[in-house]
Amino acid sequence: MLTRIDHVGIACCNLADRIAFYESTFGMILVNREINEDQGVSEAMLRISGEPAGASYVQLLEPLHPDTPVGRFLARRGEGIHHVGYGVVSITAALESIGATGVRLIDARPRHGSMGASIAFLHPADLGGVLTELVQAPGPG
Amino acid sequence: MLTRIDHVGIACCNLADRIAFYESTFGMILVNREINEDQGVSEAMLRISGEPAGASYVQLLEPLHPDTPVGRFLARRGEGIHHVGYGVVSITAALESIGATGVRLIDARPRHGSMGASIAFLHPADLGGVLTELVQAPGPG
Repeated sequence: MLTRIDHVGIACCNLADRIAFYESTFGMILVNREINEDQGVSEAMLRISGEPAGASYVQLLEPLHPDTPVGRFLARRGEGIHHVGYGVVSITAALESIGATGVRLIDARPRHGSMGASIAFLHPADLGGVLTELVQAPGPG
Repeated sequence: MLTRIDHVGIACCNLADRIAFYESTFGMILVNREINEDQGVSEAMLRISGEPAGASYVQLLEPLHPDTPVGRFLARRGEGIHHVGYGVVSITAALESIGATGVRLIDARPRHGSMGASIAFLHPADLGGVLTELVQAPGPG
């Protein structure tokens, strides 16, 4: 069902500073920046290795306001790892299969994620405290 | 320098239960269980996809005692994502390069990790709250 770890989402207070840090310390490559009003974040995707196919990413997240999910996470726990995102071939099939096990779906239907992907979150309370995201890459069409 | 996300380390209270959950919910494949006295954990590696080459894993960690790093993490924050591990080609070269940027190395020299890998941790206080591990796969020799 899952293909790989697509990304690790990291909450930070200053996106520009954190991007520069990951570029200079680890040689990661900034491939996207966008504002997601729906999720209340300004975010950046950094590719970890040079290979675009099946690449894995660090996703840096700065909240747009304190009263957002990432803003509340920062207030409660400070900067750090916020969630893990797994790649899937079919997000609708994965949601159906996972939902059938009793895990609660934060998103019963896929929504818009970074770089044109379809994404959905699963409830951390049913996953041992791990906020878990499914990511289906945009199709060729 | 980094090749991919090798694994996400997840702290849990009951390793056997959590392994069964990840197998049944996501179809992950248990590939290793071991006790690491040095780190004070009983741990399991679950491969996310079917491809062994360059695979990524979920590493589940149950503390052997409360007074261990993972035990203290559980007491402070509860179950959840504990660290991220990145693959590297040469861990000694990576440690030299990262150490030169001023990031503090928890392990200045590589030590024994899961499944024969050489690993080293970097200090989360210098990485925006993210406990970060470098992982060099065991060589063919």
